[in-house]
Amino acid sequence: MSILETIPRSVLLEKDHIVLLNQQLLPGKVQYEKLHTLQDVWEAIVSLKVRGAPAIGITAAFGLVLAADAIQTEHLTTLHVGIKKARNYLASSRPTAVNLFWALDRLVEASNEATTIEETREILRREALLIQKEDEDVCRQIGEHAVTLFEHGANILTHCNAGSIATARYGTALAPFYIAKERGITLRAFACETRPVLQGARLTAWELQQAEVDVTLITDNMAANTIASKNIAAIIVGADRVVANGDTANKIGTLSLAILAKHYNIPFYVAAPTSTFDLTLEHGNEIVIEERNEKEVTHVHGTRVAPIGVNVYNPAFDVTPGQLITAIITEKGIIRGDYSVEIQKHFQ
Amino acid sequence: MSILETIPRSVLLEKDHIVLLNQQLLPGKVQYEKLHTLQDVWEAIVSLKVRGAPAIGITAAFGLVLAADAIQTEHLTTLHVGIKKARNYLASSRPTAVNLFWALDRLVEASNEATTIEETREILRREALLIQKEDEDVCRQIGEHAVTLFEHGANILTHCNAGSIATARYGTALAPFYIAKERGITLRAFACETRPVLQGARLTAWELQQAEVDVTLITDNMAANTIASKNIAAIIVGADRVVANGDTANKIGTLSLAILAKHYNIPFYVAAPTSTFDLTLEHGNEIVIEERNEKEVTHVHGTRVAPIGVNVYNPAFDVTPGQLITAIITEKGIIRGDYSVEIQKHFQ
Repeated sequence: MSILETIPRSVLLEKDHIVLLNQQLLPGKVQYEKLHTLQDVWEAIVSLKVRGAPAIGITAAFGLVLAADAIQTEHLTTLHVGIKKARNYLASSRPTAVNLFWALDRLVEASNEATTIEETREILRREALLIQKEDEDVCRQIGEHAVTLFEHGANILTHCNAGSIATARYGTALAPFYIAKERGITLRAFACETRPVLQGARLTAWELQQAEVDVTLITDNMAANTIASKNIAAIIVGADRVVANGDTANKIGTLSLAILAKHYNIPFYVAAPTSTFDLTLEHGNEIVIEERNEKEVTHVHGTRVAPIGVNVYNPAFDVTPGQLITAIITEKGIIRGDYSVEIQKHFQ
Repeated sequence: MSILETIPRSVLLEKDHIVLLNQQLLPGKVQYEKLHTLQDVWEAIVSLKVRGAPAIGITAAFGLVLAADAIQTEHLTTLHVGIKKARNYLASSRPTAVNLFWALDRLVEASNEATTIEETREILRREALLIQKEDEDVCRQIGEHAVTLFEHGANILTHCNAGSIATARYGTALAPFYIAKERGITLRAFACETRPVLQGARLTAWELQQAEVDVTLITDNMAANTIASKNIAAIIVGADRVVANGDTANKIGTLSLAILAKHYNIPFYVAAPTSTFDLTLEHGNEIVIEERNEKEVTHVHGTRVAPIGVNVYNPAFDVTPGQLITAIITEKGIIRGDYSVEIQKHFQ
């Protein structure tokens, strides 16, 4: 079986339904669910069955396709009104997910060019599949650039899940592991479990295992000892947002890893599509760090592990200074050096 | 209520029983159990109801007192044979706990001086209580030295549970928080949850809360962000073993914190009684790192959080180079500078 078949995918569009991997149940249960209606798709996004900005955007776009197919009308205007209603409904499923709006609006805009009901539905489907295809291409290109940074046999540490199931395929930080596998290059992954939500343990360990990439799980606080004792050649992570000077917001714990990489003099890489860059911000200190529900820290899988009433600090992400980042890998190539200059050049 | 009454203690010797805090049930349930027999004590140690080298040693010593009291004989020799049998039985409860043997053998040796049955029992009791008292004094002295390193109002980060319930009272790394409280100095604690066994979340957060020390819980990977954003003045941890050059073995994650402290230019302190020093070893790389059951990583409180069959690396502790340690605080004072020289001086 080729690597392309073994890399798990989070979402696929079939003729009259969506097939969605329920990420909430991983790794205990691998369940692909069929979503037939707009309501199904909305519920899947709300209940976090799908996660990762690109995967959410693609799922919502597919949801809009199903919605348009289900509207019974012979009037184009009625169809368009229905599509806009469905668009708003889907957009309400996760109001902070920028990628969700972007994908939905791209579909609505494309469909405005259609002159018939049939054409409208075709355009929506084509555009939704195109969004998925483009994301897959972007991830693959990131992987192809990133894999050049690693030598055969290298041990690479990663954090959270910047993986295939967060995107259309391949992921960002995990893409080089898959591309390497395809090319017969051995890369061994070390995955930090990524408390509090354990995306590393639950998702990264699982998806790499599916594709038969050698993966070793550690708790987050084992990173220093693992770098020191397991011959870790580099660290690679994804990004929520990269700003103009290279400062990068990503899952909590990323900053710790960047500092450890500097201490041990190993490269620290950020894999991020150009769509993740926010050049309206000059500096990472302009990024407001979201704090999440303290229950994520005090409980694990519903079991309380901390005393009632304890104070909790639960930042969702941290900001790693550009100076600690050896290179940023996008679908367009590898950015190094003075990020304030080089990122601008990359976007020209 | 004075701070002395609110600091939780793990073990007390009453006339005909031991009162033991069942640390396995914390923080969900605060249960002090009465141990009446040798068998009860053995079972309590085996089932990890008591943890922390000093607390285990004290509990075992108390167990030997109960055992000697329970031996029905009028012959001194018979009593001594019984005591040795009880000593061996208790020693089998946790064969790797050096402190356990040390405490038991100290009692047996002291009891050898007795000339009557009554005197034997009295000496055992006195010696066991003395071991407890000495440990409390040592911890208090560590706390008194350590508290001089912190300013009123400081935020201090700690790891694992080097606390009162691991010792006779006060703990080592947590002692300065209690001494400060006693003196009206405010120190605010930030506790790393300390995966995989969560001693920070389960024990440190709980015991500081009992004594009304302001404590905030974080996951281990939040340490860098917390240092950067919460004005952390210093980090203080305990130690499993300190070797001749100052290299220190302690709970996994300690090394990461020491590297972060260096990066952020804040002091990193180790609080350790002189009994923790092993001057037979020159260098930390002579310490063999124990790996523990992978289930500690793949499961949290019995719930699987990682896929079946994933590789796991689960080192119990790591070794922090002496160069990353700002000072080591013992009951005798504060050691700074070239540890290879200063530790020797400290022991002269």
